[in-house]
Amino acid sequence: MSKVVIVGGVAAGASAAARLRRLDESLEIVLFEKGDYISFANCGLPYYIGGVIEEREELLVSTPELMKHRFNIDVRVNSEVIKLDGNSKKVAISSKDRGNYEETYDYLVLAPGAKPFKPNINGINSEKIFYLRNVQDTDKLKSVTKEIKSVIIVGGGYIGIEMAENLKKLDLQVTLVEAASHILSPFDEEIVAAAEMAMEKNKINLQLNSKVISFKEVEDGIEAYLNNGNILKADIVVSAIGVSPDTEFLKDSGIALGERGHILINNRMETNLEGVYAGGDAVEVIDFVNGNKTAIPLAGPANKQGRIIADNICGVPSIYKNTQGTTVIKVFDLALAATGNNERILESLDIPHHSLIVHPFSHAGYYPGAQQMTLKLIFNDEGKILGAQAAGREGVDKRIDVIATAIRYGGTVYDLTELELSYAPPFGSAKDAVNFSGYVAENYLTEKSELVHPRELKKIKPEDNIVVLDVRTEEERALGKIENSIGINVNELRNRLNELDKDKEYWLHCAVGIRSYIAERILKQNGFKCKNITGGYKAIRLMEYATREVL
Amino acid sequence: MSKVVIVGGVAAGASAAARLRRLDESLEIVLFEKGDYISFANCGLPYYIGGVIEEREELLVSTPELMKHRFNIDVRVNSEVIKLDGNSKKVAISSKDRGNYEETYDYLVLAPGAKPFKPNINGINSEKIFYLRNVQDTDKLKSVTKEIKSVIIVGGGYIGIEMAENLKKLDLQVTLVEAASHILSPFDEEIVAAAEMAMEKNKINLQLNSKVISFKEVEDGIEAYLNNGNILKADIVVSAIGVSPDTEFLKDSGIALGERGHILINNRMETNLEGVYAGGDAVEVIDFVNGNKTAIPLAGPANKQGRIIADNICGVPSIYKNTQGTTVIKVFDLALAATGNNERILESLDIPHHSLIVHPFSHAGYYPGAQQMTLKLIFNDEGKILGAQAAGREGVDKRIDVIATAIRYGGTVYDLTELELSYAPPFGSAKDAVNFSGYVAENYLTEKSELVHPRELKKIKPEDNIVVLDVRTEEERALGKIENSIGINVNELRNRLNELDKDKEYWLHCAVGIRSYIAERILKQNGFKCKNITGGYKAIRLMEYATREVL
Repeated sequence: MSKVVIVGGVAAGASAAARLRRLDESLEIVLFEKGDYISFANCGLPYYIGGVIEEREELLVSTPELMKHRFNIDVRVNSEVIKLDGNSKKVAISSKDRGNYEETYDYLVLAPGAKPFKPNINGINSEKIFYLRNVQDTDKLKSVTKEIKSVIIVGGGYIGIEMAENLKKLDLQVTLVEAASHILSPFDEEIVAAAEMAMEKNKINLQLNSKVISFKEVEDGIEAYLNNGNILKADIVVSAIGVSPDTEFLKDSGIALGERGHILINNRMETNLEGVYAGGDAVEVIDFVNGNKTAIPLAGPANKQGRIIADNICGVPSIYKNTQGTTVIKVFDLALAATGNNERILESLDIPHHSLIVHPFSHAGYYPGAQQMTLKLIFNDEGKILGAQAAGREGVDKRIDVIATAIRYGGTVYDLTELELSYAPPFGSAKDAVNFSGYVAENYLTEKSELVHPRELKKIKPEDNIVVLDVRTEEERALGKIENSIGINVNELRNRLNELDKDKEYWLHCAVGIRSYIAERILKQNGFKCKNITGGYKAIRLMEYATREVL
Repeated sequence: MSKVVIVGGVAAGASAAARLRRLDESLEIVLFEKGDYISFANCGLPYYIGGVIEEREELLVSTPELMKHRFNIDVRVNSEVIKLDGNSKKVAISSKDRGNYEETYDYLVLAPGAKPFKPNINGINSEKIFYLRNVQDTDKLKSVTKEIKSVIIVGGGYIGIEMAENLKKLDLQVTLVEAASHILSPFDEEIVAAAEMAMEKNKINLQLNSKVISFKEVEDGIEAYLNNGNILKADIVVSAIGVSPDTEFLKDSGIALGERGHILINNRMETNLEGVYAGGDAVEVIDFVNGNKTAIPLAGPANKQGRIIADNICGVPSIYKNTQGTTVIKVFDLALAATGNNERILESLDIPHHSLIVHPFSHAGYYPGAQQMTLKLIFNDEGKILGAQAAGREGVDKRIDVIATAIRYGGTVYDLTELELSYAPPFGSAKDAVNFSGYVAENYLTEKSELVHPRELKKIKPEDNIVVLDVRTEEERALGKIENSIGINVNELRNRLNELDKDKEYWLHCAVGIRSYIAERILKQNGFKCKNITGGYKAIRLMEYATREVL
């Protein structure tokens, strides 16, 4: 009878435990969890604080009792593994109930997760600074929300944004501080602009390009000193500036760790120590798209990894095929989803790429409730899809999931044109948003259309001899147009070619890029130099917002 | 300058026309449409009748004027092409305005679509029988709905079901007659059961296994005589028993037609006549999954085909890669979606296959509004996915679209376990419904689990020595259980193995199949013969409903 010891009882650890038992009734399985609870709904914590999830017990997906009765697993909570001795195959545990003791293993599964990053700045140890990692943190923060009126959230990642929305639901004054120029780093600026607009519309005080350099507890609250000289004040602070792997107990174990403390594994999720596996937020993985090492703390990969570990321990060969970082987040009434790499990552790695922006509807425009989304597709010269991002309401997650699936198969933009997706007016369009993005990419790669990103507008110099030509109607232009642009309705373009100059280059736009593509084709075939501003006026406005002057 | 003549101005025809112009400004393009309108929203017609789409003009996606101004296309409505002479490259037109005349072409695009099938039975020509193909039909039916109280819909396909829902919205008494044992033939019986339940709950009088053998107009309405001797009566009849290709005008043209009148094409959408292409509902296609010839009248494929035709005419090589029949339909508050082949088709073709049923939630169970769906996955011995079907509310279309994408890549159930799909509590689960279905299939194909379909329950004979073992709680069993089943809560199973008999075979079930899988693993490893009833009690009940006695 082999004995498996598991460190950590949430996503990867709990998945591994259950799968181990299903594969082998004879194993002795002991699971150590540092906190009070195993298998809690960590992605649900912000929503419990905001009262969206009403019952605390909803958070407790599994319990030690259930794990005992259903899976015959010996779960020990409030038990921190403090040391690993790989030579003698032993771990040392510090237990609330049982004091310090040791446990041997044949196989060890390390799933300690990640903990909130705590910068070494003045005032960081104030009791008015809260974190959100587990149920205890949640209880603590939820109880205090009844007594406060205002909060500063530090960090515009997933947890920061979800906390902002949920604390706003409690009618608190919410300030969100983000050191970078934009929130939600998985997204490029013109996509995240929609989320920032939603935050501001919902009265979140958004402080971008702002880094907290120190905190100071004051009698009636806490102050945050920013690098730009500003001082913010609120009743409490919620710190959510990112996570670091909770792997300090492994420092002298001989387990190979990455620069930032992540556990290094092979594609079977094995560490360098014999019989020791690791998974979840604490491990380093390989980026599916660019092949580089990275860490992507997400629940989906963690669950998959836990299962793969169990398979390999039980002699079922199983390989983890890297992480592409597919993600989605609710931001008030918006959804933002992404998969693969964004342009910022690709640029930092010098990976050549192209991008396009489209604004398709969630379902047939003539059926009530159709909502326009912004969908960005990123691909290389061969058409291979490198990433996609979308912001909108209904159907954003669906389109990103479809593209994420294509990416898994090494798919191209040409494939996207051929996907046969479900269509009826309440659900989609005969040419689905995904097909449509593929068509635009195909037209671009086969040189039927030249695309230019809205960000290029700011770089136009007089000597470039570039004219922005708006092919919308006069009525549309009256509601808003680009400075110095000229207007010719696409429907009149063939008859007004004499107004244009073959020595100039025309950058065309309409509302979203469809009519301007038609105009581009007319102009190109008549010998004019022209490009289509991808995503049209809507993308131009998003880009303007993304590059607004912020404090 | 080449001249392209297009027959039919809706999905395939209009797509071809617009793409032709974008590719080549120099073409002369003439489009003939038999009806009053081009490019109308044919999938929206039932919803306009029901008042869901309020404005009639919403149905008119494009107009001859727009096609003239924006695309320089000569659109001629009320112009029926009545003859094709492929040798002299001419078509003959019967026009409302211009009488009969001829038009030559260099390239011809045939996109005549399909028309409602009209059986040759007594009374079929009554003016109280309505059809729904185009805007004229819609206007006629909509105007009469104000004066009537009851309707008989004949045919339980997409149009019949959408009409039933929309006419019910107008507070009419609605009877739906379907000749087969179930409505919506793309779905297998246990999946469509959910739709039939929804129909009955919404007071649609559903008459299955009922074929109309004649109609009889009476003073205050119309009677439908059924093959089972029943006579139905209502104010009007809507006939929606299917469509046939509208290709009679091609009969003597030399164009190769299939048995049922579909135009035969190659993968470039070319017919056997030089320069003549065809696409849309009137063509025969190849089934992507089983490789056989078929006809699948759907808007998505029609639009894709139109574009491919235009590409090939303009010298851009383009191949149509067959139709997999991805589809979705709203049935009151339900959504049903499918892709690939169903079991009925596979059985009729003697294609070996396996199936499973799962009931995952649309998003994390602890986040409000999570809705359970029924998802059926069909695959072969190698794990290749042959089809999938789902019924539920939120997220049904998403899961089918993801699986449809995997099918396009020739994907396997093992791939489904690896897909990295977007997750946050409002949108999905860390183990998404699609991953989950892949896990169940993998466990089955790798012989960790044996699945048995609920339909097999009825076939159990006493000599089989099979016992149904329900591993739910006593509380759950009290609310409903299978006759002659025994109950042991999975959480107590390890301690109650002595109650079981190794000479018997146990067919296990819980509510949806998860706990019974755990029980199966316990029993198998303890030497018991057992199988898991796929989809659990929920699937058993759906199957019971699907095989209920109906008139």
